[in-house]
Amino acid sequence: MFEQIIEAVRQQAPLVHNITNYVTVNDCANIILACGGSPIMADDESEVEEITSICQALVINIGTLNSRTVKAMLRAGKQANQIGIPVVLDPVGAGASKLRTDTTLKLLQEIRFSVIRGNSSEMKTIARGAGTTKGVDADLADAVSQENLEDMIRFVQELSGQTGSVIAMTGAVDLVADSQKAYVIRNGHPMMSRITGTGCMLSAMTGAYCGANSGRLLEATACSVCSMGLAGELGWDRTLKTGGGTASLRMNLIDFISKMDVVTLNGGMKLEIR
Amino acid sequence: MFEQIIEAVRQQAPLVHNITNYVTVNDCANIILACGGSPIMADDESEVEEITSICQALVINIGTLNSRTVKAMLRAGKQANQIGIPVVLDPVGAGASKLRTDTTLKLLQEIRFSVIRGNSSEMKTIARGAGTTKGVDADLADAVSQENLEDMIRFVQELSGQTGSVIAMTGAVDLVADSQKAYVIRNGHPMMSRITGTGCMLSAMTGAYCGANSGRLLEATACSVCSMGLAGELGWDRTLKTGGGTASLRMNLIDFISKMDVVTLNGGMKLEIR
Amino acid sequence: MFEQIIEAVRQQAPLVHNITNYVTVNDCANIILACGGSPIMADDESEVEEITSICQALVINIGTLNSRTVKAMLRAGKQANQIGIPVVLDPVGAGASKLRTDTTLKLLQEIRFSVIRGNSSEMKTIARGAGTTKGVDADLADAVSQENLEDMIRFVQELSGQTGSVIAMTGAVDLVADSQKAYVIRNGHPMMSRITGTGCMLSAMTGAYCGANSGRLLEATACSVCSMGLAGELGWDRTLKTGGGTASLRMNLIDFISKMDVVTLNGGMKLEIR
Repeated sequence: MFEQIIEAVRQQAPLVHNITNYVTVNDCANIILACGGSPIMADDESEVEEITSICQALVINIGTLNSRTVKAMLRAGKQANQIGIPVVLDPVGAGASKLRTDTTLKLLQEIRFSVIRGNSSEMKTIARGAGTTKGVDADLADAVSQENLEDMIRFVQELSGQTGSVIAMTGAVDLVADSQKAYVIRNGHPMMSRITGTGCMLSAMTGAYCGANSGRLLEATACSVCSMGLAGELGWDRTLKTGGGTASLRMNLIDFISKMDVVTLNGGMKLEIR
Repeated sequence: MFEQIIEAVRQQAPLVHNITNYVTVNDCANIILACGGSPIMADDESEVEEITSICQALVINIGTLNSRTVKAMLRAGKQANQIGIPVVLDPVGAGASKLRTDTTLKLLQEIRFSVIRGNSSEMKTIARGAGTTKGVDADLADAVSQENLEDMIRFVQELSGQTGSVIAMTGAVDLVADSQKAYVIRNGHPMMSRITGTGCMLSAMTGAYCGANSGRLLEATACSVCSMGLAGELGWDRTLKTGGGTASLRMNLIDFISKMDVVTLNGGMKLEIR
Repeated sequence: MFEQIIEAVRQQAPLVHNITNYVTVNDCANIILACGGSPIMADDESEVEEITSICQALVINIGTLNSRTVKAMLRAGKQANQIGIPVVLDPVGAGASKLRTDTTLKLLQEIRFSVIRGNSSEMKTIARGAGTTKGVDADLADAVSQENLEDMIRFVQELSGQTGSVIAMTGAVDLVADSQKAYVIRNGHPMMSRITGTGCMLSAMTGAYCGANSGRLLEATACSVCSMGLAGELGWDRTLKTGGGTASLRMNLIDFISKMDVVTLNGGMKLEIR
């Protein structure tokens, strides 16, 4: 079902502007290249509008934000909205500090995001801050499970309705939804949490997928989430076979993204439509 | 002898706040994850106290310091002292520029460090600056050798007495000491100096080890130094067997940290108590 | 023909000061170490002159420039000129934003560069800005091909004459030239463009090669370009044999640089003197 999405990335090689953290930035650049896109990183306030203007997507990741880069995020995001290219938000650590929570909410106020990609804790912070959901902590567990699946789907769909963004809430089970439709994705491997940057890489890659498929943001995001999870599974499998550890997993994961095709994806994706 | 130390890291998964350089930050995050900890990087002055407050250890590394991040280091370090979590200092390049020397001494003046991890040149800069040792350059060679071992042990123990920190002075031979006790560690491989970040990674990992073993800082640091050296040996051995080079060594080293257990460590560590 | 150049790097282990971007900085440090040099990264304005002063070469890369680091580049570059060590410029993205173009031209105005390493688009931006060439867009294609080879050689030689720098214009075919002599280099593999940082790594490594061979800048640069291309070819070959993808290529490439010797280089280099 995702044939055209994957192919569009490889054929169009979308240029993706990333304003991101310095921890995982190299992995983000490499995974965008691996999936067929082309990354550009620029965070000086005086050039971000120009850089965004030549791109097909923008990814904003607040992993190591500071006052200088937050200004750049705001300018780039507004420019992306003006020229109509997809914008992905990765609200890394929203809820862990006032700066991160406030920045996330300010970004959401001033920029229309096509996709928000985060974990359940970050999503709850957004929901609480946006005033969407009352008592979200009481109602929602920290992780998606078989028991709370329906509640969680309702939560992300409400959040999508309020923000106008596709929500990709990732964890042991991933949910990708807009207010109309939800995908439950069960790809991935627990060892992926033992390397840094799997979340950041997913957000960056989602930028490339959306940049090449701007008319199908929900499907593009779901496809990106499936690809990442499947590459993690295949990567860990190969790691075990070669006697490696977590650093091998990181390499194998990016390797499998670079080799991902429709046959592999269709054979391995564990996706349910709700 | 280090059974409990290694196990404590894997069981407690200590959250480690790193204010570090942008050269090796990804390796630092990955090695903290590999050994069982959980890294968080944040360097904006306005959020570092909050971030430190949710962590079990703080690591300050001045590898690519600037005026903005030095302020953040000071605030985070004081907060860590206030809440009583271990703080590790990596004074990268102290002695190579006035900024680095001055910053190192200022950090030492305002923050109580649990551990200082550096090479002999950095340690001599600290000793000289702290007024601990007179004519340190005349008295001390640049590297620990069999001939000067006793002098070097005396030096690090004096430095520990003056600073109140565990000293981990690493090189061809590693010394880990407080004013009462010293470990001489002969693990490691010369090829480790052909990849960037082995020192930074060791400091970061020491943060995780100390965070999970705050009552046994000397042993936790010695255990971290042994693990790193042994992973380097095993990593280079595997690199040779697979026909790789220095980039393979980097991957294999982190792989072996992720697979390190008590049996491997006890079988391979070369540690002498003085 | 490059025997002495490669050997000089391994014997002298030149210290190379890099003011570079945070995307590929780790790869740059690792490739400098792999080829036999020693990297140091420092970008605070108040220390760069001191750091440059203890080095054998300086590399300035504007990949993620900002107003703070541009000031540091200018001070470090002037200091390098004063003490007479080679300075390499990598004008990443010159032409893509006003900030990058203006910064490149300002750097060229205030610093004498030994080598400028970039792609054809960046070189055309420099030529246009320097007023060297009229109608450069009309006259020059975007990539070097068999058809336009003579025109391209004339272009880089003119640019070398105007700037006083060795020009290394890299792409499918690489040209390395001063105003007297040009090398056409046909090493490399298209897959190298699917990993980030091959250009940055080449510039960094060229710093090490020039630092150890400051009397033979043209040959040192050509040798660095050949080594990088050949390591890419050998790296991709190994990647295919082991069933890897782009992340494996990145590792294998650095591995082959760490194992590069005169026999391998002489056996594989595809170099033509014009």
